[in-house]
Amino acid sequence: VHATRVKLAESTDLRTVAQRTPGMVGADLANVVNEAALASVRRGANAVEPADFEEAVDRLQLGFKKEGRVMSPEEKRRVAYHEAGHALVALTVENADPVHRVTIIPRSVGALGATLQLPTDDRYLVTRSELVDRLCVMMGGRAAEDLCCRDVSTGAQDDLERATELARHMVMRFGMSDRLGPQTFGRTGGLRYLGLMDGEERNYGEETARTIDAEVKSILGAAWDRARKLVADRRDELEDLAAALLDKETLEREEIELLVGVEGIRKKRTSATQSRPAA
Amino acid sequence: VHATRVKLAESTDLRTVAQRTPGMVGADLANVVNEAALASVRRGANAVEPADFEEAVDRLQLGFKKEGRVMSPEEKRRVAYHEAGHALVALTVENADPVHRVTIIPRSVGALGATLQLPTDDRYLVTRSELVDRLCVMMGGRAAEDLCCRDVSTGAQDDLERATELARHMVMRFGMSDRLGPQTFGRTGGLRYLGLMDGEERNYGEETARTIDAEVKSILGAAWDRARKLVADRRDELEDLAAALLDKETLEREEIELLVGVEGIRKKRTSATQSRPAA
Amino acid sequence: VHATRVKLAESTDLRTVAQRTPGMVGADLANVVNEAALASVRRGANAVEPADFEEAVDRLQLGFKKEGRVMSPEEKRRVAYHEAGHALVALTVENADPVHRVTIIPRSVGALGATLQLPTDDRYLVTRSELVDRLCVMMGGRAAEDLCCRDVSTGAQDDLERATELARHMVMRFGMSDRLGPQTFGRTGGLRYLGLMDGEERNYGEETARTIDAEVKSILGAAWDRARKLVADRRDELEDLAAALLDKETLEREEIELLVGVEGIRKKRTSATQSRPAA
Amino acid sequence: VHATRVKLAESTDLRTVAQRTPGMVGADLANVVNEAALASVRRGANAVEPADFEEAVDRLQLGFKKEGRVMSPEEKRRVAYHEAGHALVALTVENADPVHRVTIIPRSVGALGATLQLPTDDRYLVTRSELVDRLCVMMGGRAAEDLCCRDVSTGAQDDLERATELARHMVMRFGMSDRLGPQTFGRTGGLRYLGLMDGEERNYGEETARTIDAEVKSILGAAWDRARKLVADRRDELEDLAAALLDKETLEREEIELLVGVEGIRKKRTSATQSRPAA
Amino acid sequence: VHATRVKLAESTDLRTVAQRTPGMVGADLANVVNEAALASVRRGANAVEPADFEEAVDRLQLGFKKEGRVMSPEEKRRVAYHEAGHALVALTVENADPVHRVTIIPRSVGALGATLQLPTDDRYLVTRSELVDRLCVMMGGRAAEDLCCRDVSTGAQDDLERATELARHMVMRFGMSDRLGPQTFGRTGGLRYLGLMDGEERNYGEETARTIDAEVKSILGAAWDRARKLVADRRDELEDLAAALLDKETLEREEIELLVGVEGIRKKRTSATQSRPAA
Amino acid sequence: VHATRVKLAESTDLRTVAQRTPGMVGADLANVVNEAALASVRRGANAVEPADFEEAVDRLQLGFKKEGRVMSPEEKRRVAYHEAGHALVALTVENADPVHRVTIIPRSVGALGATLQLPTDDRYLVTRSELVDRLCVMMGGRAAEDLCCRDVSTGAQDDLERATELARHMVMRFGMSDRLGPQTFGRTGGLRYLGLMDGEERNYGEETARTIDAEVKSILGAAWDRARKLVADRRDELEDLAAALLDKETLEREEIELLVGVEGIRKKRTSATQSRPAA
Repeated sequence: VHATRVKLAESTDLRTVAQRTPGMVGADLANVVNEAALASVRRGANAVEPADFEEAVDRLQLGFKKEGRVMSPEEKRRVAYHEAGHALVALTVENADPVHRVTIIPRSVGALGATLQLPTDDRYLVTRSELVDRLCVMMGGRAAEDLCCRDVSTGAQDDLERATELARHMVMRFGMSDRLGPQTFGRTGGLRYLGLMDGEERNYGEETARTIDAEVKSILGAAWDRARKLVADRRDELEDLAAALLDKETLEREEIELLVGVEGIRKKRTSATQSRPAA
Repeated sequence: VHATRVKLAESTDLRTVAQRTPGMVGADLANVVNEAALASVRRGANAVEPADFEEAVDRLQLGFKKEGRVMSPEEKRRVAYHEAGHALVALTVENADPVHRVTIIPRSVGALGATLQLPTDDRYLVTRSELVDRLCVMMGGRAAEDLCCRDVSTGAQDDLERATELARHMVMRFGMSDRLGPQTFGRTGGLRYLGLMDGEERNYGEETARTIDAEVKSILGAAWDRARKLVADRRDELEDLAAALLDKETLEREEIELLVGVEGIRKKRTSATQSRPAA
Repeated sequence: VHATRVKLAESTDLRTVAQRTPGMVGADLANVVNEAALASVRRGANAVEPADFEEAVDRLQLGFKKEGRVMSPEEKRRVAYHEAGHALVALTVENADPVHRVTIIPRSVGALGATLQLPTDDRYLVTRSELVDRLCVMMGGRAAEDLCCRDVSTGAQDDLERATELARHMVMRFGMSDRLGPQTFGRTGGLRYLGLMDGEERNYGEETARTIDAEVKSILGAAWDRARKLVADRRDELEDLAAALLDKETLEREEIELLVGVEGIRKKRTSATQSRPAA
Repeated sequence: VHATRVKLAESTDLRTVAQRTPGMVGADLANVVNEAALASVRRGANAVEPADFEEAVDRLQLGFKKEGRVMSPEEKRRVAYHEAGHALVALTVENADPVHRVTIIPRSVGALGATLQLPTDDRYLVTRSELVDRLCVMMGGRAAEDLCCRDVSTGAQDDLERATELARHMVMRFGMSDRLGPQTFGRTGGLRYLGLMDGEERNYGEETARTIDAEVKSILGAAWDRARKLVADRRDELEDLAAALLDKETLEREEIELLVGVEGIRKKRTSATQSRPAA
Repeated sequence: VHATRVKLAESTDLRTVAQRTPGMVGADLANVVNEAALASVRRGANAVEPADFEEAVDRLQLGFKKEGRVMSPEEKRRVAYHEAGHALVALTVENADPVHRVTIIPRSVGALGATLQLPTDDRYLVTRSELVDRLCVMMGGRAAEDLCCRDVSTGAQDDLERATELARHMVMRFGMSDRLGPQTFGRTGGLRYLGLMDGEERNYGEETARTIDAEVKSILGAAWDRARKLVADRRDELEDLAAALLDKETLEREEIELLVGVEGIRKKRTSATQSRPAA
Repeated sequence: VHATRVKLAESTDLRTVAQRTPGMVGADLANVVNEAALASVRRGANAVEPADFEEAVDRLQLGFKKEGRVMSPEEKRRVAYHEAGHALVALTVENADPVHRVTIIPRSVGALGATLQLPTDDRYLVTRSELVDRLCVMMGGRAAEDLCCRDVSTGAQDDLERATELARHMVMRFGMSDRLGPQTFGRTGGLRYLGLMDGEERNYGEETARTIDAEVKSILGAAWDRARKLVADRRDELEDLAAALLDKETLEREEIELLVGVEGIRKKRTSATQSRPAA
């Protein structure tokens, strides 16, 4: 449906695109198609080819490609602290998925760095505790910047967007705000379902909107405070991680755990896990 | 009308689709058609075939299909408590339809579990008492999670959406809020009727919006408190049901009633029913 | 205009449709055409035929057809009280049109019952008193349910929608609110006129919106209180009417008037009419 | 532009339509075209013919045609008072155009009656005093109903709509509210200009909206009070006019002035006019 | 772009239209095209010809053409005062462009009169003082009406619209409100840029909206008070100008300056200019 | 995608356009295409040629071309102060990019002057301090006008728009407001993503909107106060720069630094930079 407005080159196989995007909803696909069309225009091509779709998916998942620029040492250093912050918090909180790799090599499609956790987002059910920990991991990058670089930057924009969306979902979709109760807010459907209009329809009054805003702010503020405390409490490990990243650019799971002393953390997590009722 | 924008394979018989969706309004059908189109794209097909429509109907009625994943024991356990909670409340409240089957086998289309009542939604008239009981049943799943798993999860999202929509209908369509009186609120028509725009037009002021929000919240809060009390009062039966579900994965009506001691409940319901004026 | 988007079977004569819908505005016709198209899809037909239009008109005027279901005795009893309430209030208030027939036989298109007054809606001018009485008649159904069935049901939704729309027109179109004065509120035109957008454009501020809401609520609340008093004052006649309806399913004018003792009422109305200045 | 979406019969000459509608803006023409299309559908015709456009113009200028109904004596009497009220106020206020004819014969297109003034609306400049008097004339119909029929009716809806629109223009377009000052409010353009969207864009805040509402209400309330006082002060002439209308159905200028004693009024107006500075 | 929806006669050269409208933005051009199309329909033509575009440009720049009517002496007199007011204020304030001609001859396209200043609107930069003076000139017409005709009229609508738009630009685009600070408000783009949607997107809250309203009102109120004082202070010259206009209908620059004694004013302006720092 | 609605001349190579606009998002490209189409209409051409695209890009990046006008000496002087203000602030604040050239020669596409900094906008990460300094540079032009020309002008409109947008991004996208916290506000997507709708969807309540407004105002007010202080503190250098600009019209980096005594400033900046932690 979303591909019909764009002239496709013969070699373009929409099947591949669809297979690469198993988790995407309609609106995401519309973006992919549009990005692919823009990419083909920039290439000067007459039609959209598979490579355009690949770039489009990458752009949307990893941010805009910035070719031909060189990152300054100061930027590199900031990115190292940022990723180290994500990784350190992910290793520290109880319910986060394991950290598999941290890198400050700009990906071919432009992300300045990445902290990969597996198997993120492949769950049937996620509990409130797990979501709260995810928010804390998202805040870890900026918290480390704030602690070690004395100023925040635009680099956390994507983290903040995802954290805000998640906190809003907790409040508006998952009924996880005690003040608002077991209820959902806003509706999606019709044109929004088709990906042609964005966002949700506001079907509540101003007072409810104010409470929603306050709850979202409270959840995010708590995650931010916690992330700042976590990185400050483990400043030495943070500095080690950042220094190692600046040195090697990519750290694998074993290297990270060695640096951060995950044994102690893992012990803590295991005992915490054991304190839950057995399945 | 809704099928005209999509190329159909010859073997697709819209009659079958229409027959499978007797209760759907225009907006629902539009969603089915769109989902079917997306499904065909994922398959790599050139046209929409019957199987795409079937998957679309399933997706919309039962949630997104998640292939190839295995539920963790902890998720399985949570689902068992969730479904046991729905079933226990449905058996306990006076006006709920009988529970025919409870299962925690993920359906082919992805619902993690299901509590089936018959003949749900096949009524000409539904009274306020019955709607209040339906809300309580919807809350039963999360109430059980909250009681036995020490944390709530995203698993109740669909329950909350349906409960919210029902409570809003009670207040805005059925005139069942004493504070707002015998009146309807909002209008639907035009593009909304055709399924192209979602939701309702707000034709009232901010103060009325606030009262509507408060009434909806009050109805849902009461249902939530009642569901929590019901599952806490019968915690033993809840544990039995959940354990049996984890063991057998599917319980039929007879098994359930044996476990929960429906005899006592049924007696209660019968006497309650008799206290109403005879027809 | 509204029929151009739908493929018509040759046997479909739009003239007939137009003749059946003399009082409909553009938006109504658009709905008819859309419903007819949906009906033809359900039939599995390739084009819209006259029967589809007939069903569409019926659906829109009388509600959705629910085939193959049987009403329960309790539902039947509730419908009987509901229609008896409409009829009793229509016979009692001064300015209502005469009641010609009351039935609880579900029409072929699904209304659960009907109270027919003639010549409803065929007037050049309607006074405020007459509108107030119409509202009271609309409330009579639910008032009877509330009195005799101890609970209200979803059965009054359509009555409430029509009553709300009428009360809003009194306040916003007919200048019949003393607090708001001789003025209209909101505008219709453009796309709304063509039936493509619904509702009215709000061209007033929040304070005016609040006053409109309060006036509408006050008018409807008064009608509800009056209807409840009328059916309670004549509970015996209400019971007689309901019992006769359950027995015979349809009552003609003469039977109704015999049961309710319309003679006394008619005398009252005549003398009231005579107290107005002669034409 | 507005006629392109409708299939025209060969005999339809859009020139004639355009000539009949010299004062219409784009939005009005769109309505005419749409009404003509609806009329042709009702006729069962395949194309829009001139007669359809004529009916459409009539419908829009004079209201909906209601064929085959007979007005009741009570309705006739109410219409007579209503038109007598318009005429009496038009003859009494200082700045109204002369009354040429009053009739209670339903026009072929359905208006229940009419009070014709000439040359209404054919002015380059209109002063605030003249607009205030026009509002008073518009209120005269309902004021007479209220005085002599003891209840108001739906018959004044069109008067109220036009009065409201005029009062809003005084406040929002002509800068005639001292409280709001020499300023315009709201914007029209783009799609609105083309007749595809209705109304104006609200480009001011809630407080301004409240003041606009209050000023409009105040202007209309003053006109209403004044009209009520005028018809009450001249009740005898009002009764004479209404009786003559019921008798003859149409009164020409000379008959009206004879009945109402316009000599005295005319003298008053002339002296008032002389008190203005000579041109 | 905007001309593609309209069938053009061969003799229509869009170049000429574009050359006649060098200062127009997209939305203006869309209006021209639409007006031209309407004009051709009124002419009964099959296509849009150059004359239609000329009329369209004239209509949009000078108001609607009102053929075949004759202005009454009272209207003529009011127009004379109105234009005399514009001219007098333009001659009096320090930063206005010179007045080249004043006329009360209705232009072929319908403006009732005009006060021409050159080279209005052909500046790279305009200061706040100059904008404040422009507002005062715009208010001069109505101020003269108010002073000499004892009532205001609809004739100032266009002045008020332009003054309001300018005052809003001062506050919202040019950062000229001290209370709101060096900031812009609202956004234009997308569909608005293309002329398909009107106005600006409101991207601020209610409190800011209230402050914007108050600042705009304050700027316009000050201009109005100042204009009223200016014309009252020079009432003799105003009467002379109006009388000369009624006599000759058009006054050229020399005649005007002779009547108003511009020598004294010019001296004042020169000294004022000299008080600024030399360039 | 955005070019499909416009007929392109054969010599137009969209590749070149795309290469000239590497940083543009969809909405910008849509504007370029539209402007190019308008330009070709003004040229009287049948199709859009490369020159039209070049003019379009220039128009959008540098403002509207105003051919054939000559700037007045007073305007020239004001522009000189304006650009001198930008340059002086850019040289003074700690984190601004170096000033390469300042000119008051109107560019071929109409900007009245320009202050070029390199490598502006080619950064991966920008810190809050750098953004605050950028705002201050933007305010420098108007601050100099305000100081030396005794009145502000419309010349700063573009500066104010860009400063407002940047301040809003700091608050709403980059989480740089302590009061609002680490959160984003508003959403973009769907039609907005495609450039067909402008702006962001407001997904927060009135109280949050008020806080956002207050934070944006506070950031801009601080930048304005700081810019005014900076130019007042260095008034001599400002006068020198403006005089040199009026004399030579264009100043290169070496000339500017000579005039402003950048040595002292550079020393200051270097030491400030050294006070940061080494990378």
